[in-house]
Amino acid sequence: MLNEITLIGSGNVAWHLGKALVKAGHKINTIYSRSTFNAIALANQLPDSDVVSNPDFSKNISRFFIIAVSDNAIEEVVSKITLPENAIVAHTSGSMPMEVLKKNRRHGVFYPLQTFTKEKEINLSEVPFGIEGSDTSTYEELNKLALSLSKNVQPMDSDQRKTIHLAAVFACNFTNHLFSISEEILKEKELNFSLLEALIKETAQKAFEISPLAAQTGPAVRGDEKIMEQQLASLKNEPELQELYRIFSERIKKSK
Amino acid sequence: MLNEITLIGSGNVAWHLGKALVKAGHKINTIYSRSTFNAIALANQLPDSDVVSNPDFSKNISRFFIIAVSDNAIEEVVSKITLPENAIVAHTSGSMPMEVLKKNRRHGVFYPLQTFTKEKEINLSEVPFGIEGSDTSTYEELNKLALSLSKNVQPMDSDQRKTIHLAAVFACNFTNHLFSISEEILKEKELNFSLLEALIKETAQKAFEISPLAAQTGPAVRGDEKIMEQQLASLKNEPELQELYRIFSERIKKSK
Repeated sequence: MLNEITLIGSGNVAWHLGKALVKAGHKINTIYSRSTFNAIALANQLPDSDVVSNPDFSKNISRFFIIAVSDNAIEEVVSKITLPENAIVAHTSGSMPMEVLKKNRRHGVFYPLQTFTKEKEINLSEVPFGIEGSDTSTYEELNKLALSLSKNVQPMDSDQRKTIHLAAVFACNFTNHLFSISEEILKEKELNFSLLEALIKETAQKAFEISPLAAQTGPAVRGDEKIMEQQLASLKNEPELQELYRIFSERIKKSK
Repeated sequence: MLNEITLIGSGNVAWHLGKALVKAGHKINTIYSRSTFNAIALANQLPDSDVVSNPDFSKNISRFFIIAVSDNAIEEVVSKITLPENAIVAHTSGSMPMEVLKKNRRHGVFYPLQTFTKEKEINLSEVPFGIEGSDTSTYEELNKLALSLSKNVQPMDSDQRKTIHLAAVFACNFTNHLFSISEEILKEKELNFSLLEALIKETAQKAFEISPLAAQTGPAVRGDEKIMEQQLASLKNEPELQELYRIFSERIKKSK
């Protein structure tokens, strides 16, 4: 066992971090969450983890307290908990500054740049971790903890993290919504979304091999106005999709 | 050598189909293109292919004439060319009806559902091909030709093909543009797009393992209004990106 760790939160991020930390040889000794149901479900996946409802951790032996809750719940959680003097507290958020944790002397950020859903297993070894610490020794301990999970760990200040999170919202969250739209378009004609699997995987790969700008294909970049008009017309019952279609096509035309 | 084939066009699709057909044992005996420069570049990649500028193919021995040109150039090409009576002509377009080829008795569609860029090698064996034919024997011959390239060949009428192409524009072309936006956002702060590689590949995989709707993550689906306001504010110099951010976030909230 490398480190004793308390997890605060039991959502998607806590779920995957907890399992990965245990796999890397650490111990999650305690889980604290506003959802006792989720906390117990997570504890059942881990060896010897206690679910507690008392936010006073002053006697807890954990070296790290990792806060993996929604961004809008972090401040409330921080105001409730009491931690041992020397413990390190870190949050996992892309958008919250490190300073929200400053109530505790040793604080930092432990940000895994990935999308987590409980239903989908994930290998963290290639996932970039952005680390920030209130002081050198805190930074180094968080850095070492991240290196036990991933090969790709780097210092990242709150401003860089915010920028990366914004880019990730476009590249992952909005991209995934485009996949939902595609699935809907196909479903209406009883066609299966799996038809697009080779295409979508190639799109993701190609962007990194030759850059997204060089990889752009489709009617808009070819200036194929007839097809664009025809596709816009076929979306006539979906004004929002038409609007998206127009904005994307105009931007792609200009990007040539 | 399995079949003699004439390629009409020398863009991204012609380039990759030509190479794959040769690899599968066929012969591209002739290439005809409005860009002689591109046609010669493609012929240089293939054994024994002649580049011709005369659209009279009535004496050409090819069994298949594959038209791989921009959608808006197909009709012009069709009006120019003369084909042998028994030859099969097929286009590769997602959006054009089969009937644009009806000048020739045996006509059909040979549609590879993939994104092609010359700079990026591609393996066609997993790529879905949608096949349509003016009659059974034409369909069967095109089907067999596609099966020499891919395991994933299926009948697809012009209406289904149009729907799939529209879904592909959202899932591939617009997705790729979101990657361009992300790259821009990162570049402005001197951060590298490769940071998002693990995230984007996971996003693409997860959509097929658990469906895009179940895979949705991010501030909008969590209802994290504070982060959404903060991210919108950080886009204040990019009204179009703000607009995209708003439309996507509203749609994702509603999709819960």
